[in-house]
Amino acid sequence: MPKLEAYRKSLPYSYALGIYPSMNLVESRPALARRLILRSGCEESDGVFKLRSACAEAGVREEIADKALARVQQKENCYAAVVFDKYECTLDADRPHVVLCQASDAGNLGSILRTCVGFGILNVAVVRPCADLFDPHVVRASMGAFFKLNARVYESFDDYLSEFSSHALFPFMLTGAARLEEAAKARPERFSLVFGNEQTGLPAHFQSLGTPVFITQSGAIDSLNLAAAAAVGIYAFTH
Amino acid sequence: MPKLEAYRKSLPYSYALGIYPSMNLVESRPALARRLILRSGCEESDGVFKLRSACAEAGVREEIADKALARVQQKENCYAAVVFDKYECTLDADRPHVVLCQASDAGNLGSILRTCVGFGILNVAVVRPCADLFDPHVVRASMGAFFKLNARVYESFDDYLSEFSSHALFPFMLTGAARLEEAAKARPERFSLVFGNEQTGLPAHFQSLGTPVFITQSGAIDSLNLAAAAAVGIYAFTH
Repeated sequence: MPKLEAYRKSLPYSYALGIYPSMNLVESRPALARRLILRSGCEESDGVFKLRSACAEAGVREEIADKALARVQQKENCYAAVVFDKYECTLDADRPHVVLCQASDAGNLGSILRTCVGFGILNVAVVRPCADLFDPHVVRASMGAFFKLNARVYESFDDYLSEFSSHALFPFMLTGAARLEEAAKARPERFSLVFGNEQTGLPAHFQSLGTPVFITQSGAIDSLNLAAAAAVGIYAFTH
Repeated sequence: MPKLEAYRKSLPYSYALGIYPSMNLVESRPALARRLILRSGCEESDGVFKLRSACAEAGVREEIADKALARVQQKENCYAAVVFDKYECTLDADRPHVVLCQASDAGNLGSILRTCVGFGILNVAVVRPCADLFDPHVVRASMGAFFKLNARVYESFDDYLSEFSSHALFPFMLTGAARLEEAAKARPERFSLVFGNEQTGLPAHFQSLGTPVFITQSGAIDSLNLAAAAAVGIYAFTH
């Protein structure tokens, strides 16, 4: 295998940084794991030992590689990482979706994926332009929930829509007409919760799509943080 | 005034970085604002112009100071910042509280403050050890909501408890016995929603305090992100 490079979007592989994300990778998508890289001196620590066992069982080769680890993890400080092949998912047409339009922050994106899995939404569409789905920061912020759901990138919202025209749309907007509680109560079996960009939210024309939803909030803030709004919206629709 | 220094905890002042946080500072706590610093060439851009007017009205001196701005904003990329004196708040004993025990991430802390203001919780206790409340990253992640609430640091949870013994406690724990929906329905007028640390949550002994609450979630994740859990918990208790 060639020398591991610092992550960039054009690489055919990415990294699960840290024990917990790596564990989720090896458990959920073992066929994609290519190599376990370890920091020297940490091989016997509890979590690392468990990860090494899981990798051994899945046939994933391990190596001590301090320099490679330092290079790939950038500002993180991990004992271990697993290299994995990028892959493509398809979304389940019979299940509810979360659709993230132009989410630009890798941390937000990862945190939302974690929330989705926590609340049982296992199909997520990500509409471009957006943060790189395979950025190790996304995977890490998701704590590996990334590997437990189907996430698919779409070039445009229309592309998503043409594939899932029978999903009821619930765009989250400050100008939404339906209160979240009412909208959630009236949800059908197949729905799509649609969230906009961190800075600007969804464009105004989403107002005419499905049932625009408003999370009742004080005028003292401009809006909720995207990951907070998504958490509240997904919670209300799944509880 | 002496030369502005890169932020550190021991300084008697801090920085609101960016237009929106600065605007909130000057509107909500004008007496604390000491100086507006601007990037050269940006004086007439829309947001900056509005901020300059608000500062002029509040008697806050402005200056173009590229070097100082570069020094104080670290990784941010802002057109403007306002220097402000640190201050101390007291919590309102007649209102509900959020209590953050040992929240260690400045971004999480700021995001939670933003959620609090959005959902009308204007009194927040922060228990040490925790992120520095006045860290510019906290202020910025709050988008200035920081200035619209009373936040107070406590040395220990017992210190908080001795001051507000009549608040009903709702510690959020994976081992909580009450489902969030039930707990929220039975809330009294004065309550405290208590959240633990990002890595470890609340210590086990919180199990015997008040009504431990569980946010129903899949076993496929270890837990929700702290800011996501707080958003869901605060939402449920205020809607």
